[in-house]
Amino acid sequence: MNELEFLAGLRDLPLHPGARGLKDDCAVLEFGSETLILTHDMMAEGTHFEPEANMADVAWKLVAMNLSDLASKGAEPIGVLVGVSLGRDDTGFLSGLRDALSVYNVPLLGGDTIAATGASTFGITAVGRATHKPVPSRRGSKTGDAIYVTGIIGRAMLGFEGHKQHFEAFHRPQPMLSEGYALAPMVSAMMDISDGLLLDAWRMARASEVSYRLNPELIPVADSARMDDCLRWGDDYELLFTADPARELPVPATQIGKVELQANASLFLGGTALTEPGSLGYRHG
Amino acid sequence: MNELEFLAGLRDLPLHPGARGLKDDCAVLEFGSETLILTHDMMAEGTHFEPEANMADVAWKLVAMNLSDLASKGAEPIGVLVGVSLGRDDTGFLSGLRDALSVYNVPLLGGDTIAATGASTFGITAVGRATHKPVPSRRGSKTGDAIYVTGIIGRAMLGFEGHKQHFEAFHRPQPMLSEGYALAPMVSAMMDISDGLLLDAWRMARASEVSYRLNPELIPVADSARMDDCLRWGDDYELLFTADPARELPVPATQIGKVELQANASLFLGGTALTEPGSLGYRHG
Repeated sequence: MNELEFLAGLRDLPLHPGARGLKDDCAVLEFGSETLILTHDMMAEGTHFEPEANMADVAWKLVAMNLSDLASKGAEPIGVLVGVSLGRDDTGFLSGLRDALSVYNVPLLGGDTIAATGASTFGITAVGRATHKPVPSRRGSKTGDAIYVTGIIGRAMLGFEGHKQHFEAFHRPQPMLSEGYALAPMVSAMMDISDGLLLDAWRMARASEVSYRLNPELIPVADSARMDDCLRWGDDYELLFTADPARELPVPATQIGKVELQANASLFLGGTALTEPGSLGYRHG
Repeated sequence: MNELEFLAGLRDLPLHPGARGLKDDCAVLEFGSETLILTHDMMAEGTHFEPEANMADVAWKLVAMNLSDLASKGAEPIGVLVGVSLGRDDTGFLSGLRDALSVYNVPLLGGDTIAATGASTFGITAVGRATHKPVPSRRGSKTGDAIYVTGIIGRAMLGFEGHKQHFEAFHRPQPMLSEGYALAPMVSAMMDISDGLLLDAWRMARASEVSYRLNPELIPVADSARMDDCLRWGDDYELLFTADPARELPVPATQIGKVELQANASLFLGGTALTEPGSLGYRHG
């Protein structure tokens, strides 16, 4: 099976209402008097990082990508559980884990280590607490909303390719936690961009049952000569959100388009309908 | 690094107080008005299951071993997040996952799937709610307490070896959830037996800073001619606990020894001091 087929199989299992149909970045569940936010993301050698990758960076990124999912819910991290295949540069992995946990002030809650053969895999479960209710979701964009993105898109791609000024964007991405807290009360929908701006925008438009029209001239990209690549490459971990255009933004972000009534396509780039998700970004599977 | 060395590295990271020093089966944290119980356990092809294993059984066992950790805290499962390497018998895996989630009435909360090369790894994070406070831990056995175990030890080993009447003990182990609820209010310490009775007893005695004296004639083993193997093989997922011997047990269990003042060894089997943990069971690493 590819990832889409397997995901369809998972969606057919008994789901917790807080799983949001496995169509969001996190699970959101009422627990005691608060709202718990949970996410689990993995990385595998050969798929998400090269065998010669710096393992400290891999550990950092594993933490960051999970915290980025919490950021998209405006959630405050409580801690993480980590699952580790031993055998690579374990000391390096521990050092990157320490860096990320220290910088974001997120303690370790637990985990498991295994002696595995072959390519290494790593997983983190991040546990957070909602700072605002309702908790932002991918559904909720309304016709007339403005579409925004934080930061500059395509930096991770350039960092991966070796551009020094973008090195950290790929190797040590920063989850937008404080931006997530500030935005949670005012967004109509929000997600983090992990698989490419276009693909993630397409997903959020579909979840919201509207159409997004992006203005290519407004999208802040790291290399305008490679616009198409920047919009599709992914790994940027910026926040994509929609909001009433009359509301003042609490954090820097760029308006890149507007939400329209659901049309024949979920996503338009200027006048072009983008209907083939396989061409929009990093498609799992 | 081996698992013990890596675990020492993890313990040196910033830990959440609920991590219990990474010396217990689960993290235990106050959240809202309730107590959240979290655990994460992995399985890897080549280490925890053979390449030719039935993947439905692997998925079942992955769920069961995580729920068994919740059982050792007397916790009620809320849901699980699953991390899956695709590429083996994915349909079989989904079917075993469905079986286990349905039988234990535990919904899926979320997860991640990855396309990985080489040996497959799988992880589950189980999320539960404490049914009794204080939540049982490995620390707490008191001199004079009785030591008990549920069920019969060594059945998983015989199941692994092909004995039909013990097939399910290895391939479809059952977490002792209802036993855990019933025992939580009355135990002084409790854990599930995953790595062998002797090794796990040694760990709980050390955590409690006492000595355990087991009576080999009292321990219920599946094959008395292979007592040593039964006591060391692991994978049984029974509950090991200590309690005031005057208290009536709410579930069937066998008294297998007594708790004594901390002596020169943490564990005695009859008159023999067992001081070499490497010889006591399945030692990770």
